[in-house]
Amino acid sequence: MRIEELETPAVVVDLDVMERNLHRAGDYIRQHHLQLRPHTKTHKIPAIARMQIEAGAYGVTVAKVGEAEVMAEGGLENILLAYPVFGEGKWDRLAAIARKRSLTVAVDSAATAEGLSASLRRAGAEAGVLVEFDAGMHRCGVQTAEEAAALAVQVDRAPGLRFAGIMFYPGHIWSRPEEQAPALAGVGEQIREIVSAVRAQGLDCAVVSGGSTPTLYQSHQVPGLTEIRPGTYVFNDRNEWGGGFCSLEDCALRVLVTVVSNAVPERAIVDGGSKTFSGDAWISGDRKGYGYIVERPEASLEALTEEHGHLRFPAGAAKPRVGERLSIIPNHVCACVNMHDEIFYHRGGVVEGSWKVAGRGRVR
Amino acid sequence: MRIEELETPAVVVDLDVMERNLHRAGDYIRQHHLQLRPHTKTHKIPAIARMQIEAGAYGVTVAKVGEAEVMAEGGLENILLAYPVFGEGKWDRLAAIARKRSLTVAVDSAATAEGLSASLRRAGAEAGVLVEFDAGMHRCGVQTAEEAAALAVQVDRAPGLRFAGIMFYPGHIWSRPEEQAPALAGVGEQIREIVSAVRAQGLDCAVVSGGSTPTLYQSHQVPGLTEIRPGTYVFNDRNEWGGGFCSLEDCALRVLVTVVSNAVPERAIVDGGSKTFSGDAWISGDRKGYGYIVERPEASLEALTEEHGHLRFPAGAAKPRVGERLSIIPNHVCACVNMHDEIFYHRGGVVEGSWKVAGRGRVR
Repeated sequence: MRIEELETPAVVVDLDVMERNLHRAGDYIRQHHLQLRPHTKTHKIPAIARMQIEAGAYGVTVAKVGEAEVMAEGGLENILLAYPVFGEGKWDRLAAIARKRSLTVAVDSAATAEGLSASLRRAGAEAGVLVEFDAGMHRCGVQTAEEAAALAVQVDRAPGLRFAGIMFYPGHIWSRPEEQAPALAGVGEQIREIVSAVRAQGLDCAVVSGGSTPTLYQSHQVPGLTEIRPGTYVFNDRNEWGGGFCSLEDCALRVLVTVVSNAVPERAIVDGGSKTFSGDAWISGDRKGYGYIVERPEASLEALTEEHGHLRFPAGAAKPRVGERLSIIPNHVCACVNMHDEIFYHRGGVVEGSWKVAGRGRVR
Repeated sequence: MRIEELETPAVVVDLDVMERNLHRAGDYIRQHHLQLRPHTKTHKIPAIARMQIEAGAYGVTVAKVGEAEVMAEGGLENILLAYPVFGEGKWDRLAAIARKRSLTVAVDSAATAEGLSASLRRAGAEAGVLVEFDAGMHRCGVQTAEEAAALAVQVDRAPGLRFAGIMFYPGHIWSRPEEQAPALAGVGEQIREIVSAVRAQGLDCAVVSGGSTPTLYQSHQVPGLTEIRPGTYVFNDRNEWGGGFCSLEDCALRVLVTVVSNAVPERAIVDGGSKTFSGDAWISGDRKGYGYIVERPEASLEALTEEHGHLRFPAGAAKPRVGERLSIIPNHVCACVNMHDEIFYHRGGVVEGSWKVAGRGRVR
């Protein structure tokens, strides 16, 4: 079957492009002696995670306990839950994973460390812990080197926990690659201070984990960094393209849609809306539009309602007929994949199969 | 079990509030001799659809073929697919539904009517058809009374299709209830012209279907209207509240979350982000914030990343501790429910069970 025969909307991944993305990252980390622990929130599919491992990744990153379970069941090792977890049921589930897999968990408060410790102790299990610091995104993370060192000491003393290092997420760095150096140098200075404060407490800081897709290929500019956790790089999207972090040819995932109405002047409607693409904005561009329309770059996917994608055509341009199919690169591929239970993969347009988005809906 | 014991994030529905919403709508349509065919895209759960029927609804509305299948399997009758459908596989699936259930489908082009007709004919089945007209939203729908009448004639002649009437979606009317009269009168004038043009072709126009939640209780102001299709009214949300279409006490659905980090000054992070709430804006308000925080109305859920909800507190306000639980009314409840595989229901805080969101992910 060819992708043109799939019912729409359908999410399709070009395996050749995806594999090129994986190998490019693999080559980069080998060249710069970095570890790669890709964030699987982008796809939530163990089969893709295993392909990332084959291409050089050391382990996988997840955001939810349920996603960690899916990856553990899928045979993945060296799982990092890069999220502060609170709740006895969740800590117990993490302890169950830690009995079977190498598990590392991020914390930025004593409360989450203590709870996890209690569950691990009861289960007779151990997990690594990374102390998260705020590298400038102002989301999570301790604020000073002193706080980081104090929490590291607390972790080190807690039964079941093994202090493994520090982590941050540079989600605020979206400047173009050639302009990232000052921000990355600032993060490097933070790392130097925190590692120094941690070592002053007699602790080793083996892991310094950071990295996003926008900063992926500039990671070697961050002194002290040992590991990166990009997610989006596996597929890329319109936001990565708009920011200059990939080319259109590097975008491995498209949403196939069909024009279902063209009754309104200068408009056409396709059979995918915010419940197909997600409503995420084009944050690396002019914030207009919800995707790049491969066959009709002159048109704009200017609005989304739940199941309607609203295409706008320039005055005088030929509108598509009802039934015409289009391929759209979404603004934010992680949010788009999360709308779907199943995505298809192909080579050269020939469908080779589909993956279940196994971690989708595992919100707890 | 009480809702306070559920792991978070958890979507919970207060049955008492929901039933009040359903009965209020039921009383209204009986008083004004309107039919109610609620749009089930809000919940996608057959059990709730059956409660809507018990409260006076005549049938159900859906947006996707897959949602129609879920409602048909769930025992619902009088199913309206208020969406133009294109694709042979989908038309065949609709024909299969039409053999077992009373099915009506919306069209606004000859192409979708012809395709559906061919499949129904092959299956030896029949479906009602509503011709959609554009009431001012400029999304789908024929533009003139002449186009509507011409399409009605075409439908009437097509094997398997039974012309049943006309429909529109007043999704552009978000003015406060007391200010809607001019817009509704304009729609009434459109209806008068179209019904007249259709009748001039010798056709009856039994159904005139419209209605949204913002216009629900003003529907009697639209001359000629026979049926309404509100969706959100079952739960309500921050957008309905902001527009003056319901009170906070009418909001039946909340998302329970837990504070997982408060390391950053004036901020706290809860364990739900755009993959829990959806990123839909507060379109009936100042477009700021992603939900109403019941226990902390002075705080703002000012930003969402995928799994992090970013709370902002006024300077000097006490921040919640890590582990504190909050209840949040989402901006757009239809988009929020669509993120979840399961939602819980309760009375007075006592969990009575959960529903599978059976139609979620049925994107085709």
